[in-house]
Amino acid sequence: MGTSIDSVLSAAAAAAGPAAASTPAERAGWLDAVADALDAAAAELIPLAAAETHLPESPRLKGELARTTFQLRLFGDVLRDGAFLGATVDHADPEWPMGPRPDIRRVLVPIGPTLVFAASNFPFAFSVAGGDTASALAAGCPVVLKAHPGHEELSTRTGEIVREALAAAGAPAGLFAVIHGIDDGVAALKDPRIAAAAFTGSVAGGRALFDIAVARPTPIPFYGELGSVNPVVVTPGAVAARGAAIATGYAGSFSLGAGQFCTKPGLLFLPEGHGLEEDLRAAVTGVAAQPMLNERIADGFTRRLSELSAAPGVEVLVEGGEDGPVFRPSLLTTTAKHFAQSDAAVREECFGPASLVVTYTDQAELLEVLDGLEPGLTATVQGEEDEVELVRGLLPALTKVAGRLLWNDWPTGVTVSWAQQHGGPYPATTAPTTTSVGTAAIDRFLRPVAWQGFPDALLPEALQNANPWQLPRRTDGQR
Amino acid sequence: MGTSIDSVLSAAAAAAGPAAASTPAERAGWLDAVADALDAAAAELIPLAAAETHLPESPRLKGELARTTFQLRLFGDVLRDGAFLGATVDHADPEWPMGPRPDIRRVLVPIGPTLVFAASNFPFAFSVAGGDTASALAAGCPVVLKAHPGHEELSTRTGEIVREALAAAGAPAGLFAVIHGIDDGVAALKDPRIAAAAFTGSVAGGRALFDIAVARPTPIPFYGELGSVNPVVVTPGAVAARGAAIATGYAGSFSLGAGQFCTKPGLLFLPEGHGLEEDLRAAVTGVAAQPMLNERIADGFTRRLSELSAAPGVEVLVEGGEDGPVFRPSLLTTTAKHFAQSDAAVREECFGPASLVVTYTDQAELLEVLDGLEPGLTATVQGEEDEVELVRGLLPALTKVAGRLLWNDWPTGVTVSWAQQHGGPYPATTAPTTTSVGTAAIDRFLRPVAWQGFPDALLPEALQNANPWQLPRRTDGQR
Repeated sequence: MGTSIDSVLSAAAAAAGPAAASTPAERAGWLDAVADALDAAAAELIPLAAAETHLPESPRLKGELARTTFQLRLFGDVLRDGAFLGATVDHADPEWPMGPRPDIRRVLVPIGPTLVFAASNFPFAFSVAGGDTASALAAGCPVVLKAHPGHEELSTRTGEIVREALAAAGAPAGLFAVIHGIDDGVAALKDPRIAAAAFTGSVAGGRALFDIAVARPTPIPFYGELGSVNPVVVTPGAVAARGAAIATGYAGSFSLGAGQFCTKPGLLFLPEGHGLEEDLRAAVTGVAAQPMLNERIADGFTRRLSELSAAPGVEVLVEGGEDGPVFRPSLLTTTAKHFAQSDAAVREECFGPASLVVTYTDQAELLEVLDGLEPGLTATVQGEEDEVELVRGLLPALTKVAGRLLWNDWPTGVTVSWAQQHGGPYPATTAPTTTSVGTAAIDRFLRPVAWQGFPDALLPEALQNANPWQLPRRTDGQR
Repeated sequence: MGTSIDSVLSAAAAAAGPAAASTPAERAGWLDAVADALDAAAAELIPLAAAETHLPESPRLKGELARTTFQLRLFGDVLRDGAFLGATVDHADPEWPMGPRPDIRRVLVPIGPTLVFAASNFPFAFSVAGGDTASALAAGCPVVLKAHPGHEELSTRTGEIVREALAAAGAPAGLFAVIHGIDDGVAALKDPRIAAAAFTGSVAGGRALFDIAVARPTPIPFYGELGSVNPVVVTPGAVAARGAAIATGYAGSFSLGAGQFCTKPGLLFLPEGHGLEEDLRAAVTGVAAQPMLNERIADGFTRRLSELSAAPGVEVLVEGGEDGPVFRPSLLTTTAKHFAQSDAAVREECFGPASLVVTYTDQAELLEVLDGLEPGLTATVQGEEDEVELVRGLLPALTKVAGRLLWNDWPTGVTVSWAQQHGGPYPATTAPTTTSVGTAAIDRFLRPVAWQGFPDALLPEALQNANPWQLPRRTDGQR
């Protein structure tokens, strides 16, 4: 381990105590300060991001930075709300049915220094000052941020702004640092000073890091958001009522950001004889060619697309592919029968501007193929209100394979709110009980501690009798 | 895989849908029915448990069964309360600062068929119908219970009673089954039909199973409660005020149940020159010899005790050991200086009736040694009210290494309530953000699903506009 990474980890470990001793209100102030500083630096950061990622400045990067600073401030609201602490007070009860109960009180505390691996495809929202950083800092955990090599310069500059803002807001030194390079990232992941890790990226990369995290002498929670096929099921009624609009919406969604979203709809289930071939062709060929984030991702996409195109029973509806420095979207099609017998080349995520239409003969065949789907982040139904019974029959299978279900919408575009869920059974995430977007993301970086029989003066403020933080608390079982 | 285990897993998988479709109120009824049936069978079950585990019928096994059925009924209260579902409703908001927000609603759903490995040392409370089973069934997950070989007959009989009670209460077939033998347990753990696992037992056994769970092609959450040293820190003031009483309390706590509790105090930190040697010797030699659960545990204890006794700087204060079929407790002592330089033989849990007194010279040395402690389930302070400042200085270090802190009490005896926390950083558990005792244990077996834009008729009842279950819900950010 280099001296630089060692000193970063020592500083993070040293910051853990002061961070844990901070109040939620103080941490809300730190997050607000970071958000303000990033907003103020927009004119510098957005062109930097555009140059390194080839993403358009407006509306894309501008919107993404707004989303990022909104998210930081929303965690401020979570902190001021206080329910996230799960404060619970059970007074001593000599009549407790299982035997006399001591006074026992429970609250969540920060899990400790957290290593965050930034994603390539959202240089703001899932990177240096993104959701994992925001939720871990909100929880009171020092963050060591492993920059994504796809936007190193932006990462360094964002990191400087975050550090300066935190320092000016009075946060402990060492609370946040950016590191670079996979060797340092792996060294940090193996280091006993790191208590948890979060990651957004590919299945291969995420699984390799997960395997390292759980093989440590002291395994740690690893919150990896890896891959997702994001099926969309179109009912016969929806095809009849608005087939052309669905074709257009689908083409727009799967090609958005050159298909480099974890919620890209990778599968469109259409009833056999849907008659939308021409609409789909027109919609997909009408999409402008776009550059991809970097050469590594472009190469990976080209390889995956050729595997998919060559798979038995798969036909090409629209041949897209490379066009100088930009990529045109591709559309393929197969039948549910072929899909059910297919291997990983067909069933797993293809990151980039391509998607697969799967035709089904009837509801029974559809259900069978849904039941065998690889789980993911989302599952969407395009249906009609008068098909409620038909759709209800699909929902248990869809709930089983997704963390977010959508009705007559497209899965790209992930709002940040109290009810958001961005996660799901593996490989959507390595931690299916959690989310990486939305206010509940803070839960990942907290662990419970119970206090038994302590005098009021020694209890943490969250649990003292006077409830000085005015937290919502469950007391003796009552909300 | 034998046909028997295969059919058990198929039945569990088939039960997952109906279980997920059940209402919390229905599941509360199932748990109450199981509790009633176990209470009704007490006269049969308690002698069976005593014969297989050598634990005394009264008060120990009688109390443990009461605790077990209380726990089942308490999860009924959790289900009727409804807050565990985390129901959250965010209405569509065109003015949402990051951009228009769709209607999005979030609720927790059962994670799926759960494999529970029973513990040896609590044949009721951490076994067939114990806490993991109760919390997983409450969550709506089918349970496959791997019986502990230390009480096979009791496990089979308890399993029959649970199955009959569930069937009579109208629960889905296949919701619960008992399997036997480590081969079937490992086969089930590797099986794709299992979605989560829970375990209580040794570090070696639990780590081996954890490693299997996370190495699956589809890794699953593994909630292992493994081992804990449970340090107790005695302040100078407490020694002066009530040293003899502390010696007696300590001897009683570490020898309770022949030291076969995961919360057994394994370390007692006393100020140098405490002068309690005679009190400790008298208290420990006054404890009656007790049989151990089984020969395997007795052999393991004997081996660990001889390692500990032979470690550099460790002296024997009371030589206990085997006395025919029963064991007398042992007490050892060392200095903080030796402890700080010691290896696993001294620092890790020794399961059985032995404990180690560690003397410290001053607060600085105490803090240093606490900082390097292996984490665990509990940490206890025996102090005086006028030592608040001194104790406050210890609490950050203790919070770092434990899930439950106690004041002037002993860690054995774990109440079941809303505020209980039974967990902690590894090796206390493999999942430090969770608990295996108390109402929050249900969280381990739930995963979130968000519903975006659905018509009311297609939403789960927990999220419908009329709130038919009258759940506590967070709506548009407001509690």
